[in-house]
Amino acid sequence: MRKFLLTEKDIPRQWYNILADMPNKPRPPLHPGTKEPITPDMLAPLFPQALIEQEVSAEKWIDIPDQVRDIYTMWRPTPLFRARNLEKLLDTPAKIYYKYEGVSPSGSHKPNTAVAQAYYNKMEGVRRITTETGAGQWGSALSFACQLFDLECEVYMVKISYEQKPYRKIMMQTWGAKVFASPTDRTEAGRKILAEDPNSPGSLGIAISEAIERAATDPDTKYSLGSVLNHVLLHQTVLGQEAVQQMEMAGDWPDIVIAPFGGGSNFAGLAFPFLRFKLEGKRDVRCIASEPASCPKLTKGVFRYDFGDTVGMTPLLPMYTLGHKFVPAPIHAGGLRYHGAGAIISQLIHDRIIEARAHDQIETFDAAVLFARAEGIIPAPEAAHAIATAIQEAKRCREEGTSRTILFNLCGHGHFDLKAYQDYFEGKLQPHALSDEEIQQLIAQIDTPEIA
Amino acid sequence: MRKFLLTEKDIPRQWYNILADMPNKPRPPLHPGTKEPITPDMLAPLFPQALIEQEVSAEKWIDIPDQVRDIYTMWRPTPLFRARNLEKLLDTPAKIYYKYEGVSPSGSHKPNTAVAQAYYNKMEGVRRITTETGAGQWGSALSFACQLFDLECEVYMVKISYEQKPYRKIMMQTWGAKVFASPTDRTEAGRKILAEDPNSPGSLGIAISEAIERAATDPDTKYSLGSVLNHVLLHQTVLGQEAVQQMEMAGDWPDIVIAPFGGGSNFAGLAFPFLRFKLEGKRDVRCIASEPASCPKLTKGVFRYDFGDTVGMTPLLPMYTLGHKFVPAPIHAGGLRYHGAGAIISQLIHDRIIEARAHDQIETFDAAVLFARAEGIIPAPEAAHAIATAIQEAKRCREEGTSRTILFNLCGHGHFDLKAYQDYFEGKLQPHALSDEEIQQLIAQIDTPEIA
Repeated sequence: MRKFLLTEKDIPRQWYNILADMPNKPRPPLHPGTKEPITPDMLAPLFPQALIEQEVSAEKWIDIPDQVRDIYTMWRPTPLFRARNLEKLLDTPAKIYYKYEGVSPSGSHKPNTAVAQAYYNKMEGVRRITTETGAGQWGSALSFACQLFDLECEVYMVKISYEQKPYRKIMMQTWGAKVFASPTDRTEAGRKILAEDPNSPGSLGIAISEAIERAATDPDTKYSLGSVLNHVLLHQTVLGQEAVQQMEMAGDWPDIVIAPFGGGSNFAGLAFPFLRFKLEGKRDVRCIASEPASCPKLTKGVFRYDFGDTVGMTPLLPMYTLGHKFVPAPIHAGGLRYHGAGAIISQLIHDRIIEARAHDQIETFDAAVLFARAEGIIPAPEAAHAIATAIQEAKRCREEGTSRTILFNLCGHGHFDLKAYQDYFEGKLQPHALSDEEIQQLIAQIDTPEIA
Repeated sequence: MRKFLLTEKDIPRQWYNILADMPNKPRPPLHPGTKEPITPDMLAPLFPQALIEQEVSAEKWIDIPDQVRDIYTMWRPTPLFRARNLEKLLDTPAKIYYKYEGVSPSGSHKPNTAVAQAYYNKMEGVRRITTETGAGQWGSALSFACQLFDLECEVYMVKISYEQKPYRKIMMQTWGAKVFASPTDRTEAGRKILAEDPNSPGSLGIAISEAIERAATDPDTKYSLGSVLNHVLLHQTVLGQEAVQQMEMAGDWPDIVIAPFGGGSNFAGLAFPFLRFKLEGKRDVRCIASEPASCPKLTKGVFRYDFGDTVGMTPLLPMYTLGHKFVPAPIHAGGLRYHGAGAIISQLIHDRIIEARAHDQIETFDAAVLFARAEGIIPAPEAAHAIATAIQEAKRCREEGTSRTILFNLCGHGHFDLKAYQDYFEGKLQPHALSDEEIQQLIAQIDTPEIA
């Protein structure tokens, strides 16, 4: 068998909340001013009540609303493949499987949480959701979700991406979203930036500020984030729970589970439902988060409190971070260009329950092209990080003469990233790995609270 | 249920050859010089023997080789969806289903035949396959297929598309193909054009001439076509046979089957396996081919012998045609810009066993955007023609207060066509429908043999 397919009735009915099973819970978020633990009501201007409850919930299983599950059936369950051609090409005794989330409408795992978030906002009478987006993966997922619930969607898209990557913008517009090149003159934050530099190319930090400001100043409007937060990671576990069932169909169990790492939702989605068996003491599994060597917060960052945004407006979260002012190199895996890791993931790394590995950009494109030629799917640059780790592990199996079962998350297709492939073929890609000196300098500049 | 999924074992083991069931067989192709029926050996320089045999076979069922079927499992069986959201939006009593071929590696139904053609070429020791491509749907499918069989693939891509639509070109290169901007200086045909006009933007006719010349003059090289011919239509029936099983799963049977129409393979793929039941006298079904009003060969063309290419090098085929010198308007549905219809389809239209309907470009994009907002998938402009027909029929059900079951072929996604959507949103799209006067003029110019 090459492909393991479930039916609609196999789509999970609950999300898995790993918080319930963690031996050490993450430290609480702190108020940016007082440095005291924040209370849930402080988040009320930004998020609907149901999502705030999920953010702090310690319940192990949280029901997926029927309407969300019904929308999931538009693309879920997604297929799980055995990468037979890739195994042959690598001449490895390893068995390689991948879960493919690129079959979703926007082409990645992001709609799993976008639909849930849109649903809860709609239930609480919200009219409009704002968000930021860089290259557009998250913005397009949320546009799709808002369209289904007849919610307005305002996307603040980093201006340079808005101009250079028009396809994702058109996709968002096709789904009825309003897309603005950030900085705009629609917000205080945007106007301030434009006053200083009318030609500002924008940044994710600025776009976040604009989206948050809109939500904070309009009672009909809430804000939505595509990763990092607990409730976002929670929603993605639908994909890993499917993968558990599919590995059972295959009569197999992964020794190693691998996923790309940006803010954590991609990794959490695949790995947490497998980690559950480890935390329950039932089955062992190694889980590896694959990050870019240009933004190696898990492998080279420090574990301390830091802000979620560049400006320093959000609560302080306990995270592995390179510092909230760090601006990663312009790698093509835009979804992995984030300075810190979510609180749950950071605690799991700190407790050595999961591992991380970094790859430079060229290595990830070597892996992506090898994969595309073997398996026929052109991966998103983010997904290519997990492929690079999987190939390393498969080669190790060959060298050691041992067979292991490897599973990775092919979180999306690369149909909107072909310019990156062209750069690769033309030898224009840079590796962008940070040196140890650069890392030390970054860490030395961090002035947020240490973790006691 | 929203989605009807089969398993690997349900992938058909044979292709269905409708020729066996047709009450009137198509007239034979004629030699372009002698105007006498051609013999199979005249095709030997261009195609492997196995494909020539399929081209003339009258066997009802033709076995799918195990290796081809194994590759089909990379993306087959493809899903069949009930368009519940679209039904609700149209407030129609009709039930609307669609078969979705966009999950294939190159994003359309084209790999169904590309893989089969590459396989037979490989079996007969061919080293290299040439083909032409316009916007790149077919070229990318064949590149993918050749990659899997370690065959060289040379794609002659119309120069203006090569320059204006770089993404498909990069996709072909990712799969290891050599892509040339046609006209090239690699062939006599290309050099002749370049001598006359060094800045020629190219055309599909020129690209065909280049690809055929390469195959005709090199014993290691064969030529491949993505539609029109009998063996190409045959290979696509794998998709319609799956759809028959899926409609059975749904406990339903289509009153109307609809597919986009370019050269015939898209339509044949979905419709022929349903038409079989009609030709066998078991169940009735209406089958509608959806074509562009800018290239209305089925609805407005004449039934006579005509060439398959612009220059007039191919055998004369009995077809509905607008004349082989007709250059269709530059609509975004590049796959439907072909002057004639394959011989089998033309005979079925002539015998009133199937129907056709034409839509102007703006109507098809109205339908595409409505569909994308309801169902979440952004359709290829070709697929939008079938959607437009399906919506017409669903609205008719509403007006008449009757329920009918409608099935259409969503043959591919529009991820590489978002520029067309942008043009639509910006009001820059042209309808491009041909007037009756223009049609009369075109037909008056045709000087190829009439059908006795």
